[in-house]
Amino acid sequence: MLTNKKTIHIEWGDCDPLGIVYYPRYFEFFDACTNALFEAAGFPKPLLLKRFSIAGIPLVEARARFLVPSAFGDTVTVETHVAEWGTSSFSVGHKLFKGEALAVEAFEKRVWTVQASDDPRRIQSQPIPREVIERFR
Amino acid sequence: MLTNKKTIHIEWGDCDPLGIVYYPRYFEFFDACTNALFEAAGFPKPLLLKRFSIAGIPLVEARARFLVPSAFGDTVTVETHVAEWGTSSFSVGHKLFKGEALAVEAFEKRVWTVQASDDPRRIQSQPIPREVIERFR
Amino acid sequence: MLTNKKTIHIEWGDCDPLGIVYYPRYFEFFDACTNALFEAAGFPKPLLLKRFSIAGIPLVEARARFLVPSAFGDTVTVETHVAEWGTSSFSVGHKLFKGEALAVEAFEKRVWTVQASDDPRRIQSQPIPREVIERFR
Amino acid sequence: MLTNKKTIHIEWGDCDPLGIVYYPRYFEFFDACTNALFEAAGFPKPLLLKRFSIAGIPLVEARARFLVPSAFGDTVTVETHVAEWGTSSFSVGHKLFKGEALAVEAFEKRVWTVQASDDPRRIQSQPIPREVIERFR
Repeated sequence: MLTNKKTIHIEWGDCDPLGIVYYPRYFEFFDACTNALFEAAGFPKPLLLKRFSIAGIPLVEARARFLVPSAFGDTVTVETHVAEWGTSSFSVGHKLFKGEALAVEAFEKRVWTVQASDDPRRIQSQPIPREVIERFR
Repeated sequence: MLTNKKTIHIEWGDCDPLGIVYYPRYFEFFDACTNALFEAAGFPKPLLLKRFSIAGIPLVEARARFLVPSAFGDTVTVETHVAEWGTSSFSVGHKLFKGEALAVEAFEKRVWTVQASDDPRRIQSQPIPREVIERFR
Repeated sequence: MLTNKKTIHIEWGDCDPLGIVYYPRYFEFFDACTNALFEAAGFPKPLLLKRFSIAGIPLVEARARFLVPSAFGDTVTVETHVAEWGTSSFSVGHKLFKGEALAVEAFEKRVWTVQASDDPRRIQSQPIPREVIERFR
Repeated sequence: MLTNKKTIHIEWGDCDPLGIVYYPRYFEFFDACTNALFEAAGFPKPLLLKRFSIAGIPLVEARARFLVPSAFGDTVTVETHVAEWGTSSFSVGHKLFKGEALAVEAFEKRVWTVQASDDPRRIQSQPIPREVIERFR
């Protein structure tokens, strides 16, 4: 099972007045980690959208547990893998490590979507191509 | 039980290349909604920090379900309340409505923290004062 | 000359470890203020894009002078107007006030753009319709 | 004269509905580039703050010219150097390249600040130590 590691340098602008990472920023990190995982699987996001004519892979669910705070100047590592493939949705797991310690554990459920044929402003789910799934094995 | 309503205008900068709200932004909204709830309870955050000598109310857990996407130009309403008070932690529930439709449902678990007496750079949990909890009833 | 006022509540997430507004956030405010000015002129941005078949009004230049810092909990007011109309570009001026004090003064130069006819992924400038300019007088 | 190069991968979350970098994000990049320059000079920001007991190096001025848009999936390089040292302020220049093309040119004027002795919540400028300036030569 394909797992991608991404190193993130915590920037001043990622942190709040407490001096620790402002929590929505973690979700920005995880979104980027999901894209990095797809890139590691051979599908950088621009190619992914073009190749399969999809609108994107938006979220239907996200959750995170924050165990250890990180501060600006810290360098953290995120391990990302697809935890489960459904028909038109999939779940991505992220573990953010600060040194050896698991600092944040997160989970995203995403949907494979295309623009609706009758209204390009609306998106709808579609089965994930087998070719995509196989690249993560 | 005190519930606060906050109206949010979705800005261009909240949206991603799909034209819909970039999901970490929802958590920025919810963080602001929690602060607005405390303000409605008589504790704007700057006062809260000063009055109780706390470091902040950082998160230990967050989760959200995204049911209906919102796009720039939309105006949404968030209803926020404290769902549960623990000894030193509490849970905040948020319901984001787009018109009549429930568009996002979220939950934050937060901790009442002070700076550690032996190291001001470290934070530790502390029991939530009764006076605070009573203001939300 | 049309001037729009927008009130902004400084949120916890707008601030950095110094406890003051992280400066890129000011530009997010100003971008939203430009959109609010167009809305005041009768052109909310979604309508603007649709009505004139434009791709957007991206920036070619931005600058700001930061005179007085703002902190979370502050409420500030931004006064925005179009300072100059060119053929296909225009300049927007913003003055952010904290109480009576001018706290930030900024300027954006933007271009009226459409998608290139030969490549929808590329954008190109186009003359600003007279109808638009007249709404700001 | 010390110049630092930083490679930035444009993420989905950096881009707006036009599919190009939302301009305030460039300023987040430049802020991180300034910190990376200080790190290259031997002063990672946490050390800088501690070593010289400063509150930070906030901005008094920022400006940028946007010449070529970047989109998600692009990798850009930023070259950063201190363009001028004043007594208690300094100017940082940034050139962001997309391939060979200069895509954004920016400038930040920053102040060396300490907490006011009579009020830790207020900051005031102070002469920049010679030791700091010498590290950039």
